[in-house]
Order: sequence, then C-alpha cells, then structure tokens
Amino acid sequence: MKTLRVELGVRAYTITIGEGFLDQTGKIACDVARSRRVLLVSNPTVFALYGTRTTASLEKAGLEVITQLVPDGEEYKTLAQVETVIDRAVEKQLDRQTLVVALGGGVIGDLAGFVAAIYQRGVDFLQIPTTLLAQVDSSVGGKVAVNHRQAKNMMGAFHQPRAVLIDTSALFTLDGREYAAGMAEVVKYGVALDRDFFTYLENRLGEIGRRELPVLEEIIYRSCSLKARVVERDETEQGLRAVLNLGHTFGHALEALTQYRTYRHGEAVAAGMVVACYLSEHLGLMKDTEVARVKALLQKLGLPVALPGFASETIMEAMYLDKKVQGGKLRLVLPRGIGANTILDDVRPESIRTALERARI
Amino acid sequence: MKTLRVELGVRAYTITIGEGFLDQTGKIACDVARSRRVLLVSNPTVFALYGTRTTASLEKAGLEVITQLVPDGEEYKTLAQVETVIDRAVEKQLDRQTLVVALGGGVIGDLAGFVAAIYQRGVDFLQIPTTLLAQVDSSVGGKVAVNHRQAKNMMGAFHQPRAVLIDTSALFTLDGREYAAGMAEVVKYGVALDRDFFTYLENRLGEIGRRELPVLEEIIYRSCSLKARVVERDETEQGLRAVLNLGHTFGHALEALTQYRTYRHGEAVAAGMVVACYLSEHLGLMKDTEVARVKALLQKLGLPVALPGFASETIMEAMYLDKKVQGGKLRLVLPRGIGANTILDDVRPESIRTALERARI
Repeated sequence: MKTLRVELGVRAYTITIGEGFLDQTGKIACDVARSRRVLLVSNPTVFALYGTRTTASLEKAGLEVITQLVPDGEEYKTLAQVETVIDRAVEKQLDRQTLVVALGGGVIGDLAGFVAAIYQRGVDFLQIPTTLLAQVDSSVGGKVAVNHRQAKNMMGAFHQPRAVLIDTSALFTLDGREYAAGMAEVVKYGVALDRDFFTYLENRLGEIGRRELPVLEEIIYRSCSLKARVVERDETEQGLRAVLNLGHTFGHALEALTQYRTYRHGEAVAAGMVVACYLSEHLGLMKDTEVARVKALLQKLGLPVALPGFASETIMEAMYLDKKVQGGKLRLVLPRGIGANTILDDVRPESIRTALERARI
Repeated sequence: MKTLRVELGVRAYTITIGEGFLDQTGKIACDVARSRRVLLVSNPTVFALYGTRTTASLEKAGLEVITQLVPDGEEYKTLAQVETVIDRAVEKQLDRQTLVVALGGGVIGDLAGFVAAIYQRGVDFLQIPTTLLAQVDSSVGGKVAVNHRQAKNMMGAFHQPRAVLIDTSALFTLDGREYAAGMAEVVKYGVALDRDFFTYLENRLGEIGRRELPVLEEIIYRSCSLKARVVERDETEQGLRAVLNLGHTFGHALEALTQYRTYRHGEAVAAGMVVACYLSEHLGLMKDTEVARVKALLQKLGLPVALPGFASETIMEAMYLDKKVQGGKLRLVLPRGIGANTILDDVRPESIRTALERARI
C-alpha cells in the first residue's frame, strides 16, 4: 500500500493506492463523509464487477447508499446525463452534506465530479477510479467536466475530491485496449516531466504486459505524485498545469472529429504525443533519436502513433475549437527532449501542418 | 454615484451605483476584461430597453459583442437554457479569457453567472442588474444557479463577478409588481440585520413610492453593503451567510408549489418573512408589535403578507426539499426582533404548522 497527499490547503486530500482496497471504501468514505447518505455514481459495466463489494463496504460502515448508473461510454459524458443524476439526488432529497462516490473510469469520475461541483452549489466527492487512465490522471487534481458535442470538457469546474481510493486489482478486469490507453498518460508524465520515469517504463515492459501489481502500484504512485506536484503549484490551470496537456490538443481534435466514438482518450493522446514530438523535432527542441524512443515505447504498449485519414486542415480547424486556444492563439505544450517541456503560443501553422502531415502515414 | 468594494481577496470587486451608469459599461468591462470578446446575455424585454445602449458602450470601448438572449421568466432558468448559451459560446469559439456580461434581472444574472462558472471550467463575468431585486441582492455575492423543476437553485456554484454595475435609472422601467418584489429583499436586510435601516424605510415610503433616485441609490447602497459584509465573512455559506435566507425557506416552497409562475421571488419572500415573524412570535423571539410593523411595511409596499390556499402539510413537504435542509433537519433563519436574527434547526413541526396556519388567512 502507498499513500500520497495532495497539498492544497483546506482542499488537501489523500490518495490511497493498493491491492484489494475496494473493501476499504466504507472506512475511507466515513472519514470524509458529513452525512450518512452517499450517492454512488457508476456505469452498468463497472457496477456489475464492483458494485456489490463497494456497496457492501459502504453499508457495513453504516452509510445509506443511493445508486445511479450512467450508460457506459464517453458519448454519455453530457449535461443531459448530469441532469439525470441530479434528478435522482433531488428525488431522494439528498442534502448539501451528501458525499458523491464516483466508481468507474474517467467518464464517471468527470461526470460525477461535475455533479458534485454543481449540486446545491457543491457537495463532497470521493473518487474510486477503476481504469488505469482514471487512476493515473483524471481522478487526481479536481478537473471535472462534461463534453459539448463539438468540443471536449467545455462545461466543468475545478472541484477537488475529498479522497481518492485506488484499487490496483481492478486493472485485471480492464480489456487490453483500455489498459494500453491508460499507459499513454503514464508515458506522458515521463515525456513531459521525468526522464528517469520514462526509462523505468522502457525497462518494465514485461511486467507491464503481465500487469504485475507491484510495478503497477509503483507506476500509479509515481504518476499521481508527478501530477500532484503540478496541481499543487497551479490548481486552476493559470499556467504551469498546462504541461499536463502534452499531446492533448491534437488528441482532443481527433476525439472530437470522430465524435468520441473511435478512439479511447489515451489512444488519441498517444497519437497526439507523437505529433507533438514531430513538431518539437521540427522546431529543433528534440533529437530524432528521442522522438524514436517515444514512438517505440508507445508502439510496444500497443498504442497508435499515427493519425488516420483526416486532412491536416480538418484537424487544425478542430484544434482551434479546443479550450486551450487563447485570444485565437493555440498554446501548445511540446516536449523539450524527454523529461522536460515548453509551452509555446507562437508556433506557425505551417509547422503544425508539417508535423500533422508526417503523422498521417 | 456611490461605489462599494466587496473584499474577497483575489476575488474582490467593486460595485458601482449611479444614475445613467449603463453608458459606463464599456469602460468598466475594459477594466476587467482579459479578451476583446464579450458574451452579452440578456432577455428580449431587457434587451429591447437597454441592449442598444449597452452594446454601443461596449463597442465604443473596442470590444466585440456576441449577444445571446434567453426567454424572459423564472421558468427559463434551466440547464437547457444554459446549454443554449454555451452552444453560442462554442459556435463563436469564445475562449477562457471571455467576459460574460449579464444584462437583466435575477434570472439572467443567475443563469449567465452559472454559464460563466462552468464554461471551460470558469470565465469572468460582469453583472449589470436591471431590476431592484437583482440590484440589492442576487447580483452581489457570487451565488449563481439554475432551477430544478422540483426545487429552486439546485444546480449552481459560488462564482464571484469581476464587477457589478448598477444603473438606478433602470428602475423607472420596472412594472410596479417587480419593483415591489425587489423591496421585499430590501426589507429583509432591515429585519435580519439593521434596525435603523428598517426605520429609514418606514420613513421613506413616499420617496420609495415615487421612485426618487437619491433615496433609491441610498437604499441600494445600504442593502449591498449589508450583504457584502455578510458575504465577506462567509463566501460559500458555511454558516453566517444563511442569515440572508430569512423568509426564503417558506418563500421557495411557495414558488416551487406554483411552478415559479404565480409569484415573483420577492413576493414569495415577503409572505415567507411574515411566516418567519409569526414563528418568531410563537417562539417568544419577537414582540407582536414588531411583527405588526414588518407586516405593515410589507403591505404598504404592495407585497403579499399571507399564503394562499395550500394546506400547511403541502407547504411543509415542499420545504423539506429545500437546499437548506441538512440531515433531514430544517434550518430556519428567524428574526429576533427587528434588526437581529437567529438560526434554529430544532423548531418542532407543530410550531411551523401553527405559523403557517396563521398565515393562511
């Protein structure tokens, strides 16, 4: 077991990482809950796997559990589904002291977290991420949101969880594609922030492939630590926090163009990271050998490293719809070698086009 | 002209109150805007009266104005209308630096403020309240929200404006009923917090009736000051801020039971305040002569002081759906004489029923 503290003053919280920790849900919920009633938000797939254990743990701790399921899939991360969950909360007369428990992947965490952010102007919530992607990224840092049909995460808030509970054994039930998608965000931390961590990943491909829990626990711990240190310095993304978006501007465009249906978020980020590397190389920020290392690691993890048949112009148009556009300028997070990064808002469209073209094949 | 500072650290802002101040919109917007593009949210009624002047002032200051109108009425303070405004923002590719300008009454301020709170996880906004109710209450303090069909303001946030601009001459175009409704919140400040202010109102009924601007400016300034002092000490309503809800638990129930269509918010608050006074008298917290003074002032202002034909049980059921219920307990703000208050969460249902029955006639 590992624990990690996210130091955010009055909004500080603890991330607990370990095997079989789902059975601790009741205890951890009781530590933070201000009422005896919790609203458990999940999807049918996750709930079928972990619903009984989670509910049992909560009830054993003396909590009353009200459950609301949301259909499985990024296309349901909508304001309409938020309203459905809130209907349930109102129906059950849940008050301001209610604890929202998000049991699921990034979609559930983002959606339930947004419900917690706006229900009665904000209630507490507990993140129990069950996918690798959610465990290493979306469950930490308080960014919650739902999608607009034309652009991702357009409606949201910064609303920190009161605790994060990560059960590594949940990773056994992930399909291979979902597991690989999570690894894309793990690689991102290495590329953007930590060269040693990147090398560690290159050296642990066997253990990662076999999903060996001690290595996964270490990977999750290091990923969450890297993210926590960034979030602590820039909770509401005034500047620094943008480094966590490496690969995301390209990735979000790809997701939006395919209506969030074709690519897992992590897959889109992987392809986006490759475009970012190409662009860095083009701008003289990264050696070709380092670009090759990033590409090779992603490929070995089973992730896409090229963009499909969209015209570069189409992708660029979608990129300008992204939240990271400011004053009509694209702000791009680009690797500066492996383990460091830079944020540029004056990259010429021609350069971006060149990188996109290179990634098309 | 009067100005008032709401001291909230990094979220501090200035309220400017004066006759004809709408023409200063461009200047004030420029002071706070971080982009050249503003999203002006209004309704057709208000926009017909003040849209041209406001837009002209903004454009003269070099800002590009994107306008989105929302139908007029509390029944449109919904998540669906929020989505419509956000559609427009996405369509126009408005970025995180965008300033949302709310031009209208409480509905527009609450709705546009909520849009600003969640669009791209939060953008700046400027309040230009055009009704008395919004000028003395809803535009100050950062509470923004939309209604659930079963309960008011169930989805919202604490999101402070960057500035508030109050043009007292807008009050000339208010119909009598709307004007009186605003006065209900003014009286609330006197009853809950300031005995001298209550007496001032009793002594200025003539000027209030004739809508004399110097007196209105003073009334708005004192109301906003009283509210600001409370908000500064309890921005997110952990405790103290609840005093501003005097009369609101009863009032919200009345509004919900009539689908927000029969009563103006202020009218419901007036009736609710009378019930609160009856309850205080019943509990020995208020003298009958003081209850009579409150009732007389509200009546002279043209406000309802009785509840219509709902059974007390029906009203009580609706009250328990209110946000102010915690752990199944009603927290009631009750006057302690005129100019002071107390918050109780252990009032027996029989006492509440007695007060409601007395108000039914």
